[in-house]
Amino acid sequence: MSVPPKADGGTAVPRRRAGRPSNAVLDRAHITTAALGIVSERGYPALTMAALARQLGVSPSALYNHASSKQEVLQWVQERVMSGVDSTGFGRVPLREALRRWARSYRDVFAEHAPLIPVVAVLPVAGSPRTLRMYESVAEGLSTEGWHPERIVPAIVALESFIFGSALDATAPLDILDPGQHASALPVFAGALEAQRATGAGPADTAFELGLDALLTGLLGAGEAGQESGRESPPA
Amino acid sequence: MSVPPKADGGTAVPRRRAGRPSNAVLDRAHITTAALGIVSERGYPALTMAALARQLGVSPSALYNHASSKQEVLQWVQERVMSGVDSTGFGRVPLREALRRWARSYRDVFAEHAPLIPVVAVLPVAGSPRTLRMYESVAEGLSTEGWHPERIVPAIVALESFIFGSALDATAPLDILDPGQHASALPVFAGALEAQRATGAGPADTAFELGLDALLTGLLGAGEAGQESGRESPPA
Repeated sequence: MSVPPKADGGTAVPRRRAGRPSNAVLDRAHITTAALGIVSERGYPALTMAALARQLGVSPSALYNHASSKQEVLQWVQERVMSGVDSTGFGRVPLREALRRWARSYRDVFAEHAPLIPVVAVLPVAGSPRTLRMYESVAEGLSTEGWHPERIVPAIVALESFIFGSALDATAPLDILDPGQHASALPVFAGALEAQRATGAGPADTAFELGLDALLTGLLGAGEAGQESGRESPPA
Repeated sequence: MSVPPKADGGTAVPRRRAGRPSNAVLDRAHITTAALGIVSERGYPALTMAALARQLGVSPSALYNHASSKQEVLQWVQERVMSGVDSTGFGRVPLREALRRWARSYRDVFAEHAPLIPVVAVLPVAGSPRTLRMYESVAEGLSTEGWHPERIVPAIVALESFIFGSALDATAPLDILDPGQHASALPVFAGALEAQRATGAGPADTAFELGLDALLTGLLGAGEAGQESGRESPPA
C-alpha cells in the first residue's frame, strides 16, 4: 500500500473523516487485512464491526456498505488464512506425502493465527470456496486410492481435529508441562519429560510429527505408498 | 446450596452487601462454580475478577481475600474440569482400552466446556495437581508397556491435541461442512458428505472414533492387547 509523499519528503498516512471513506481502502483485501490484524493482536472477541471501522479509519456505516456483516468479514478472513494451506500434492505425489504436506502447512498457518482456531473450527464452510476446494482435493486424493465414500469425511475431520489441536499446542509455553513442586510425586511423567527435553527437539513439533505419523499409519496402513489400507471395509 | 426459608414459606436468595461477604459463599468450590458458569454462558473473555465478584454478590476486594488472581481461579477451574476425565483404566485394563476410555471422557468433558479449550490447551499444568496425576497415570501406562521415555510425552501431547480438536468439532453446527451452492463443483466431497450422512451416524462422533482408532493403531500397533509397537526404537 503506497502513501503519498509529504512535502518534506516523508510519508503521511492519509487522514479520513467519518462518512467520507476512501474506496481504495475499503476493498475486501484491506478489510480482511485489518480484521486479521485485530484478531491477531487483541484476540477474536475484539473483532467487531465498530472496531474494524475504527481500525480502517471509516464510519461503521461506510464499512457496512462494503461488508454486510461480521460473518461476511469472517468468511473473508477464513479465505485469506486458508490460502496458506498446501493442497497441491493430491494427485501429484503419493497420498501419504500429500496428506503430510497438507497437514503441516494447515497446522503452521493456524499456529500463526491461534485466536482463529476456535472460530474457524465451528464456522460453516459454505462461504469459503477456497476451503471447499481444499476439501475436494483431499477427498479426491482419498477416493482415488479406493476409499469408501462414507469414510472420507470422517477421516478429513479427524485429521483437522488433530491439526487444530496441534496448532493450539504450538502456541503453548515451552514449560507448560513442567510439574514444578510436584515433580517428585510424578516420577514416571517427570522422567519422561526430562528424557524428551534431553533430545533437544522442540516438544510441539515432536508431538505433531509423532501424532501425524501415527494417524496416517492408522488411516492408510504401514506407510509405504501404495499400501494404503483405507480400502478396507468400513465398520458395519 | 441451601437458602434460608422466608417467612411465607418460599425461599430467598440472601442479599449481600459489598464488604460483608459470606464466607460460606466465598469458598473455593463456590468461586470455581461461579467462574465456570461465566465461561460457559458468556465465553472466556467475560471471566474477569470484577465479573466474578459481581456473580458472587461480593466486592472485588472480598473476592481477592479468597483468590489471589484470575490465574489462581483458572487453575481451580482446570482442576474441576479435569475431575471428569477418567484415568482409572491405566494398569487395570489393556493399554489400548485405558487410553480409549481416557480419551473419550477427556473429549466429552471439554466438549461441554468448549470456551475453555483454547485456555486450558496453553495453561501451565504446575498449578493443577489433578492434571499432573492424570499425566502420571498415562505415562505409567505407556512405560509399563515398555515405551521409551522420550516418546511418552510426545504421545500424550499428540493424543491431547486430537482430543482438544475433537472437542471443538463436537460443538460445530451439524451442517458445518455443507457446500451449499458450490456442491456441483465439488462432486467427490459432496458425494462423500452425502454417503456419511446416509449412515445416520453422528458426524463428530464418527470422526472422533475413526481418528482415535487410527491414532491408537499408529501409536500402539495392530490393536490387539499385548501387541503394542510403542516399544520400537525412537527415531534417531
